[in-house]
Amino acid sequence: MDDKTDYFSICEEASEKAIEAITPLVGTPNAYKEVYAGADGTPTRLIDDVAEKAILEVFENTGIPMRILSEEIGEIVLGKDPKITIALDPLDGTYNASMGIPFYSISIAIGSLDLSKIDFGYVKNLANNDTYYAMAEKGAYLNGRRIHTSKIKNLKQACASLYGYQKNVEQTLGLARKIRRVRLLGSVALELCYVASGKMDAIVDVRNSLRLIDVAAGKLILEEAGGTITNGTGKPLSLECNIINRLSMVASNGYVHKAILESIGGKYQ
Amino acid sequence: MDDKTDYFSICEEASEKAIEAITPLVGTPNAYKEVYAGADGTPTRLIDDVAEKAILEVFENTGIPMRILSEEIGEIVLGKDPKITIALDPLDGTYNASMGIPFYSISIAIGSLDLSKIDFGYVKNLANNDTYYAMAEKGAYLNGRRIHTSKIKNLKQACASLYGYQKNVEQTLGLARKIRRVRLLGSVALELCYVASGKMDAIVDVRNSLRLIDVAAGKLILEEAGGTITNGTGKPLSLECNIINRLSMVASNGYVHKAILESIGGKYQ
Repeated sequence: MDDKTDYFSICEEASEKAIEAITPLVGTPNAYKEVYAGADGTPTRLIDDVAEKAILEVFENTGIPMRILSEEIGEIVLGKDPKITIALDPLDGTYNASMGIPFYSISIAIGSLDLSKIDFGYVKNLANNDTYYAMAEKGAYLNGRRIHTSKIKNLKQACASLYGYQKNVEQTLGLARKIRRVRLLGSVALELCYVASGKMDAIVDVRNSLRLIDVAAGKLILEEAGGTITNGTGKPLSLECNIINRLSMVASNGYVHKAILESIGGKYQ
Repeated sequence: MDDKTDYFSICEEASEKAIEAITPLVGTPNAYKEVYAGADGTPTRLIDDVAEKAILEVFENTGIPMRILSEEIGEIVLGKDPKITIALDPLDGTYNASMGIPFYSISIAIGSLDLSKIDFGYVKNLANNDTYYAMAEKGAYLNGRRIHTSKIKNLKQACASLYGYQKNVEQTLGLARKIRRVRLLGSVALELCYVASGKMDAIVDVRNSLRLIDVAAGKLILEEAGGTITNGTGKPLSLECNIINRLSMVASNGYVHKAILESIGGKYQ
């Protein structure tokens, strides 16, 4: 399964089944009902559960041996002697989907068994079908059109998503003072794609709560679009191959990266 | 023109014409081009200008004498001896629309000549057609279904939109520490409707930059849905009948209002 078309087709089918499964729940009180504790340590909501089950069925039906890391089930292996690992967030933006806020996505990264190399990244906004994807060294795309990050160089003209609530609240204060515009849309995977396509200039998350599955696909899409992504201190984002490790993150068009890191006490290394 | 159906029909037609006018520009660099300085003191972007012109034509074609306050043109009077005033924001969320972020709205409030009484409020998400409206003392509706604010009583379970960047940044720090979840979607008129329909529990803007036209429609919709709206110090929101005055605002489901005001240094009066 080396062909990007295969990866893309599988992701499209997975999205289609996820949309079918969640549509009756979107914007209903039932969606947000806790059904069990997910493998990542956070509660699994009904809408997460139905999305994950629908997607896993698609992966299973391919017959391809694979290892899967996913939010609710944790880690599973399909078939014998898998050569690839898939990092899956079945529904990034569970709260938004449950409330009917039209901004929630599926995020799928496909790579080597230890995920030290990501070959394919795919993120779809399930509320409006905008589809972002990238193959390593082949560029990033939105709905089939090549995308690139913005050229904004000055924080005073920049728009960023700033996840700085609950934890480490002070850390984004200086940045919030300087920046032209803040958005906080509630799906990090999709917001990484917004930076990749120049809709926003950066996304900053200092809560130290991001997981591999939130960022693996968006990272490839952003980098293939010309952007830069580091942890909150300016070091390479260390994506350990599990769903437990937690990360802080600065992702940007590259031009504003240094200024953002300085404003939150990190360094560009 | 006392009948709510008339008001609703006019607003629907205005929205339709606005969507027609802006669709070729949404998500294009041209959309955000400055065309002149708007009457409210902020730059008018091309996409604002085409939206306003399309909507004003609809109002004019009704033949009804009216006074209009709007973002770009300021104040105009159509016909002789008008009995009503319309507070219009042709496009709330100009940046979002220009960038193709699917969250931008039209906001129309219709009331007495001095707007001391708002009779009808209408806000439509132009990206997905969700339509919120309310008549004074007749309840609030989303796509024809009655809506109500949420029942969340504790900030630790609440989701709020917090506009606390650039100015008065420290003021929302305490709130950001306590609250469960933050969103910042970029269209205040629509976010007021999200509080009205229970999708979020509050919206707080301490930048002192809101205008009558941003909040007049959403205020009626929120109040008719059971919510509470004050200025940033807990006093009644003073909607002076112009587009120059600037406001801070706390709007909520009512239950979390006092706790929010306390956290930002205001009082519930």
